[in-house]
Amino acid sequence: MSDTMQCVEDMVKEWQFARAAVEQKSSIIREILKDSTKPGVINFGGGLPAPELFPIDKIQNACTAVLAKYGTAALQYSLTIGVDKIREVLAERYKRQDADVSIDEIQITGGAQQGLDIIGRIFIEPGAVILTETPTYLGALQAFSFYGVRYVSVDTDSDGAIPQDVEAKIKKHNPRFIYLVSTFQNPTGITISEQRRHQLVEIARKYNCPIIDDNPYEEIRFAGKPVSSLKALGKEYVIQLGTFSKLISPGLRIGWIASNRQVQSIIERMKQAMDLHTNTFAQYVVAEFARAGHLDTHIELIKREYGKKRDYMMGALKRHFGDDVSWTTPEGGLFLWVKLPDHVSSTALLPAAIKAGVAYVPGKFFFSERQDDSTMRLNFCNATEENIEEGIKRLANVVASAV
Amino acid sequence: MSDTMQCVEDMVKEWQFARAAVEQKSSIIREILKDSTKPGVINFGGGLPAPELFPIDKIQNACTAVLAKYGTAALQYSLTIGVDKIREVLAERYKRQDADVSIDEIQITGGAQQGLDIIGRIFIEPGAVILTETPTYLGALQAFSFYGVRYVSVDTDSDGAIPQDVEAKIKKHNPRFIYLVSTFQNPTGITISEQRRHQLVEIARKYNCPIIDDNPYEEIRFAGKPVSSLKALGKEYVIQLGTFSKLISPGLRIGWIASNRQVQSIIERMKQAMDLHTNTFAQYVVAEFARAGHLDTHIELIKREYGKKRDYMMGALKRHFGDDVSWTTPEGGLFLWVKLPDHVSSTALLPAAIKAGVAYVPGKFFFSERQDDSTMRLNFCNATEENIEEGIKRLANVVASAV
Repeated sequence: MSDTMQCVEDMVKEWQFARAAVEQKSSIIREILKDSTKPGVINFGGGLPAPELFPIDKIQNACTAVLAKYGTAALQYSLTIGVDKIREVLAERYKRQDADVSIDEIQITGGAQQGLDIIGRIFIEPGAVILTETPTYLGALQAFSFYGVRYVSVDTDSDGAIPQDVEAKIKKHNPRFIYLVSTFQNPTGITISEQRRHQLVEIARKYNCPIIDDNPYEEIRFAGKPVSSLKALGKEYVIQLGTFSKLISPGLRIGWIASNRQVQSIIERMKQAMDLHTNTFAQYVVAEFARAGHLDTHIELIKREYGKKRDYMMGALKRHFGDDVSWTTPEGGLFLWVKLPDHVSSTALLPAAIKAGVAYVPGKFFFSERQDDSTMRLNFCNATEENIEEGIKRLANVVASAV
Repeated sequence: MSDTMQCVEDMVKEWQFARAAVEQKSSIIREILKDSTKPGVINFGGGLPAPELFPIDKIQNACTAVLAKYGTAALQYSLTIGVDKIREVLAERYKRQDADVSIDEIQITGGAQQGLDIIGRIFIEPGAVILTETPTYLGALQAFSFYGVRYVSVDTDSDGAIPQDVEAKIKKHNPRFIYLVSTFQNPTGITISEQRRHQLVEIARKYNCPIIDDNPYEEIRFAGKPVSSLKALGKEYVIQLGTFSKLISPGLRIGWIASNRQVQSIIERMKQAMDLHTNTFAQYVVAEFARAGHLDTHIELIKREYGKKRDYMMGALKRHFGDDVSWTTPEGGLFLWVKLPDHVSSTALLPAAIKAGVAYVPGKFFFSERQDDSTMRLNFCNATEENIEEGIKRLANVVASAV
């Protein structure tokens, strides 16, 4: 280290930072994303959607149309809650799902991650308890941890969170909310069953404990039978987070929170202080894209392609792994979840895997309590079929060397 | 209120929110912005730049070029710190100002407001003291207040914050940082003098107390002699916030924080948890706009036009107000500051002003301590010359009725 850098480091060491900020850990997914651009590494790690499907021309057309139609309004400051046009698109889509959400109940956010940060900000203070699934989404853990949350993890099986355990833990811990990724969960790909959805909403009503349904993948169902949306079933008791990241493009950073008027007024004050409002232009572009009919056709395309890629990855897993490794069979979304033999640590294996040219996210980072390190999350939709085959082969070799 | 709404309200009342979230106040500027679309109201209130100057065609060209050149990369997730291309543009611009800032020291943010929220998040915890100018930027007050800050306001005159008072208050209060809007301040339009800049940086060094320089307007100088940038003078002791909101378009929400490597690593972890990263596409578009040479020419245009508008508003103030009202003479930026007779409350006058068809921001909301309610902030760059004349005339009539 140079003298100047040492000097700056010594100087900054004495600055008075907030304790929660200094203690915050970096997301391992983001770190992997940093390494994933290394040539030759097949990356099943990040949450990246398939880039070859991005509707570049249609986005280009939407940009042109927005600037022609709305001109300066698309480039000016706009309302904190979000641009009307996009909230109208969302309210109509909710209606199609039998969920009655008005445009006054929808806050546009900088992706679903900002939605999570806002939820943390309005509900959590040091020591507050929330319930999470086992495992749960690590981006949510990262967002909520800043606010000093105490996690209580509820028992979860292949039908999702187990209602009896949710109820018992509400009684015991009086949590601020129940955090669920209800559909094609990140990381496991599991969907909460229809029956459980009704039971969970009943529990939310009985104890007046809100459900946060983090729901980026619901529209990407390529197999199985649709289930009712928690927002449709639970109405005011359910705060739903959504995003266009997986439906159009993550780079546009357009997500939303659908709650109710009372919660929205709190959300809006937070969002004002956080960044005034989300990118005006991107909101118009996404609304225009949807209005032109491209959103529905693009979702159909994604479903078809992701379904094929899931099938392909499951085939490759079957071809290259033995009976001591198992995995989930998601009916939609981007991720599946692999269970290695109990004594194998996927965290310890990761450096060897990256050296062998394949990346994943070790499962243990998705647990708020009771970590299981013999698991991993694989993204099946980002790589080509050829790379899926080769990547799973490499992964199987690395795992075999550790068994 | 309908029964259903009453029912939801009763239900939500029992939810356990974070205290700081429920206590957060809404920004009066945002509330005014909500009303400012009412037909007939001439709005000197918000911080809106002149929409007729937005370079729509050049932004359109940049969008097209970005999608053609970078394709999927412009629509995909990107690094938390920001896209390389735009940080390279910024590092070069810093070099032109004799400030040595590397691309590893620049975090791209969702506008400067997110920069403020990040600064609050990393430095402030309940009871922590920071120093502010008198008056200071209300968006900063809003951002920092969430984190439980205690404000200490330093004496300020027409040359900016008074160094002797800054030093005395550092000794007394051991603040986390000194918050300055150094150049064409929001709200007063005042610029810290060259001599004071050197003194303030010396004090920051002596006490190892960082300066946060919130600096959205520095490049919009249309009169007077340039002064040294605090970042150039103070290097690692100065964390500078910048934005393209006033230079290109606020709707694109692209700002930045220039700090040093140590602080950047903390900022980056925060930003990850907050929203992963800023809109990828907008970052590419702004970089492309700058690379094509449009940024410099557009800034020249803005300077010319804003200078004319300032002259026009100062002329109108002279034409319509008497000797008992005074105002600042900003050499750049968007705002000037009006002092009414001591006994006149600009807050109390606001409803009558809006009824008469003119809006402004009452000055008292810009004070962290010792509010002076006989002041107001006027934005001189958003209205046409005709509306400036008519708006100031209306304002003078409303004030006259109260004197």
